[in-house]
Amino acid sequence: MVTADLFNNPTNIMDALNTLANSSDVMFLIFTGAFIFIMHLGFAMLEGGQVREKNVNNAMMKNMGDWIIGCISWLLVGSVIARTLNPADFFIWWGKIASATPFLTNNGLELANWFLGLVFAATAATIVAGGIAERIKFKSYILISIVITALLYPFFSYLGPWGAGVIPFHDYAGSLMVHGVGGFLALGLIAAIGPRFGRFVNKKAITIPGHNIPMSILGAYILAFGWYGFNVGSSLALSDISGLVCATTTLAMAGGGLGGCLFSKNDVLYTANGLLAGTVAICAGTDIVSPLGALIIGFIAGSQVPLIFKIVEKMGLDDVCGVIPVHATSGALGAILAGIFGMTAFGGVGGVSLTEQIIATLICAVYGTGAGFILGKLVGAVTGGLRVKESEEKAGLDISIHKLPAYPKEN
Amino acid sequence: MVTADLFNNPTNIMDALNTLANSSDVMFLIFTGAFIFIMHLGFAMLEGGQVREKNVNNAMMKNMGDWIIGCISWLLVGSVIARTLNPADFFIWWGKIASATPFLTNNGLELANWFLGLVFAATAATIVAGGIAERIKFKSYILISIVITALLYPFFSYLGPWGAGVIPFHDYAGSLMVHGVGGFLALGLIAAIGPRFGRFVNKKAITIPGHNIPMSILGAYILAFGWYGFNVGSSLALSDISGLVCATTTLAMAGGGLGGCLFSKNDVLYTANGLLAGTVAICAGTDIVSPLGALIIGFIAGSQVPLIFKIVEKMGLDDVCGVIPVHATSGALGAILAGIFGMTAFGGVGGVSLTEQIIATLICAVYGTGAGFILGKLVGAVTGGLRVKESEEKAGLDISIHKLPAYPKEN
Amino acid sequence: MVTADLFNNPTNIMDALNTLANSSDVMFLIFTGAFIFIMHLGFAMLEGGQVREKNVNNAMMKNMGDWIIGCISWLLVGSVIARTLNPADFFIWWGKIASATPFLTNNGLELANWFLGLVFAATAATIVAGGIAERIKFKSYILISIVITALLYPFFSYLGPWGAGVIPFHDYAGSLMVHGVGGFLALGLIAAIGPRFGRFVNKKAITIPGHNIPMSILGAYILAFGWYGFNVGSSLALSDISGLVCATTTLAMAGGGLGGCLFSKNDVLYTANGLLAGTVAICAGTDIVSPLGALIIGFIAGSQVPLIFKIVEKMGLDDVCGVIPVHATSGALGAILAGIFGMTAFGGVGGVSLTEQIIATLICAVYGTGAGFILGKLVGAVTGGLRVKESEEKAGLDISIHKLPAYPKEN
Repeated sequence: MVTADLFNNPTNIMDALNTLANSSDVMFLIFTGAFIFIMHLGFAMLEGGQVREKNVNNAMMKNMGDWIIGCISWLLVGSVIARTLNPADFFIWWGKIASATPFLTNNGLELANWFLGLVFAATAATIVAGGIAERIKFKSYILISIVITALLYPFFSYLGPWGAGVIPFHDYAGSLMVHGVGGFLALGLIAAIGPRFGRFVNKKAITIPGHNIPMSILGAYILAFGWYGFNVGSSLALSDISGLVCATTTLAMAGGGLGGCLFSKNDVLYTANGLLAGTVAICAGTDIVSPLGALIIGFIAGSQVPLIFKIVEKMGLDDVCGVIPVHATSGALGAILAGIFGMTAFGGVGGVSLTEQIIATLICAVYGTGAGFILGKLVGAVTGGLRVKESEEKAGLDISIHKLPAYPKEN
Repeated sequence: MVTADLFNNPTNIMDALNTLANSSDVMFLIFTGAFIFIMHLGFAMLEGGQVREKNVNNAMMKNMGDWIIGCISWLLVGSVIARTLNPADFFIWWGKIASATPFLTNNGLELANWFLGLVFAATAATIVAGGIAERIKFKSYILISIVITALLYPFFSYLGPWGAGVIPFHDYAGSLMVHGVGGFLALGLIAAIGPRFGRFVNKKAITIPGHNIPMSILGAYILAFGWYGFNVGSSLALSDISGLVCATTTLAMAGGGLGGCLFSKNDVLYTANGLLAGTVAICAGTDIVSPLGALIIGFIAGSQVPLIFKIVEKMGLDDVCGVIPVHATSGALGAILAGIFGMTAFGGVGGVSLTEQIIATLICAVYGTGAGFILGKLVGAVTGGLRVKESEEKAGLDISIHKLPAYPKEN
Repeated sequence: MVTADLFNNPTNIMDALNTLANSSDVMFLIFTGAFIFIMHLGFAMLEGGQVREKNVNNAMMKNMGDWIIGCISWLLVGSVIARTLNPADFFIWWGKIASATPFLTNNGLELANWFLGLVFAATAATIVAGGIAERIKFKSYILISIVITALLYPFFSYLGPWGAGVIPFHDYAGSLMVHGVGGFLALGLIAAIGPRFGRFVNKKAITIPGHNIPMSILGAYILAFGWYGFNVGSSLALSDISGLVCATTTLAMAGGGLGGCLFSKNDVLYTANGLLAGTVAICAGTDIVSPLGALIIGFIAGSQVPLIFKIVEKMGLDDVCGVIPVHATSGALGAILAGIFGMTAFGGVGGVSLTEQIIATLICAVYGTGAGFILGKLVGAVTGGLRVKESEEKAGLDISIHKLPAYPKEN
């Protein structure tokens, strides 16, 4: 039935209104969710461009694998854990998803919400990929991705303000809940797996440039586009949509790009990663900081990317795509800065506690890094080491694992 | 006028509500239609990456040509045939489109619906391109594209449940109506045009790899993104939007990717094509199957892609981009599986007849393959053969037809 | 609160309705704005593919720079000038954006509108980039971009129908207001900066092909996708959304592609640029011309692209990406043709004055070209010339400015 027809009979006006409001909510969730879904392409291209030509297909496979696994894990386990730890709820849910009829009420609003949860979860998982690229076994990676989307992400989500609220803090769109968790998991895993061959020679860092910079810029832009779904969709209900969120996301992105550009002397990758760092940092407070506050938050996050990348490198950590500065430290900064610029004294809406923000950030950092490191060691034990053989790493994962180069030549 | 202003005067509340409901419908159709439009880019990149470097521009031109022709054909002929075969209706429509005023009522809802029909039609046409790539004359291709969007697609649409319902079956988003028709037309045309030089030597199949795998993955992701418009938009009215459709689309995509990956031993192109095969297969029953049912449907569709590709090859057919397994057999499977997983016994909503689904699938396969083959032969007769000269094929269509390589070197 | 919950208490029905209407408006503005935002990626890829391999990163940086600068300029200066020249209004606005609370009413509708204004402004600025590519100093470019988004674009916006209406004419989505201004500014700047080395030898034009045609096609498609936001979102309020706008945009795009293809004998770049020229031209009259009228307008705009490109070249102007035919002359043609096909005699809605359209076009051409030329000369004086050194231009801007090639090889 055409929506407008609903209103032909004024006696049913309340039913009609409820249908319109409800279907608008479903549309809002699906569209913002689709925006977030396409961030997977963004991550694929961002990483694909930053790895060597011999590991591009592997980057694509890890990324598609994250999505495939994320969907299945979230359906079977993750979406339940994010809400409840009661075992009975699992059986209720599993019974439900074997049937279509429970999801016909309210235009399937329950599944639209499930979809939005999924795209957030899958994002957290795929953040990790760029950190441990170019050396991990495909089966090890897949196991890691399963554990993240089925357990680690959902459990932190359950603890935080989106779930049971065990850890109280303000995080509108996931500076910590998504990017912090993903970024710190990556930190732990990077420590667990060790650097690529040739990345450090006699303790000196050797830059290994990626093969296709515009591919990475393409990815960064797709991510930035998706962020309008990520942050705006975090209102969950259309009636709570916020133009402020849209503007602060935009301005933090600009501030981040500016910081990344200035502190890298016009480097193209740092500028793009700065843009993304700004959007990561604004997620937490996007609904409560002022436009100017957002610009400053973004600028701080973008500015620290080149510096943190260098520090991470000095520590002997090989973070291929810079996911630590872009997701871990930017997420942490964003959570804390939401506690500052969210205060009324700094132009914010108020109602946020800096102490809570700092505590949550510390918990997230410890949880993510610790869980990532342990997960890396455990998966390594299960799969006979996390890494491919030296000869395979040198030949490239595209040939050694996937039997196809990214750019085949005509015979 | 700002929408909210409509409600300032309570005496006009019904008018205001109708305006809001109607404009929301128009927005829903335009946004989902735009998502489907961008699938053209998806097809362009998916095919572009799977052809050799010497035929990339030609892939781009065929794709843009499909869109240009699709728009004009659908305006002048196709959209009428899809509704009616009454000659008088053509003249009424042609009179109408010469004027803007008929389309000012209801926020132009009629044209928003026309646009959604167009993006479906143009998709069906462009599916064909990937099958007959790297050897067809550009003018032959254009003629084929005209006939598909002006006649063959609209006529089947008229016969099916979206039109007059002569063939009754359930196909929510076009497993058969779009992908089946496109895929089987491709099968007929592939048979008509014959394989590329060097594809079969002494009856042995020689693999001709595409030149840019990440380009194809980019295309696959864009297509997957567009699918959220394709399937969700098929409700046509916002009030009928379904979160179930969104979830089953997602899960069939994941199942398809899993199947493609497992049965190809981690091949990147089969994984991506598996994702797409899953979404093709779910179109028919996306509104009536359970989440778990969707996962299974997708898995079946994805799993058969490597197998069917091999069988097609054994038959001496040169399906460059695998459009037969991805669109024809996945579409057919999807229509039939909707008849199974749509049953209440298998968790579905019911109201679907397996017999009808099978009959419609057979009709679609015969119609598409037959019409495609005959069309190929007819166009071949008109254009002095379907194929470019052997020397042109060897030199590549970019140089021989479009006078420009895809990747020009600096002099 | 879930939107549907708003309707549980019938006593508050008017409040609930206002919330639904208002939040729907905000969603409409944000989604269409996000579509327009992603046009930046479109421009980046369109230009990136049309420059030589040695200048791709520079194209990316100019493009990201436009966005970063656009956001900040529009926040601090541009969005005010576009509405008012009263100095007091600046101080009011600056006070406001230091706080979040003014933007919490009406779901932040004010900032959603600000965002839509921003994406239009940033588009106008980035149009220029493709014309003066491969030779401009990065700091000179940044200065130019600041002046355009802070002053030149907003001031013309203020003068035109979107602002104070000093110059009265019909321009629904910006054939002149955005594309004309951007295109004519490019013309002036191209004249000011002079051609690339080797572009003209003994007054004979030498074609310098871009390095990656499918990258440009990708960009063109992203732009075309964004156009559905650009034109449809120009209604500003959801209740004024128009299916006619969607259809005329589509048909002008098709007509433009057809014209570009026919008059270039199947050239892939002219076809893509023709598609874009068609959409540029339809912006002005997209809401008032008939579907057939739109097809004709697009065809005219697309057809003139190869011809105007040749004429520009004959004049010794080096317009790298053809922004003069695609934006300047197509924008001008579009404004004028809106005055013809918008008449009721030609199937239009009427209420448009051909005289006004022509006068506005002339003003825009003079304003844009003059301001662009003067701006180029002034910025050149400030930055010690607009151009990089000859040796830097020959080495490529990626290495000489950004210290990184676009496609680094593995050592």
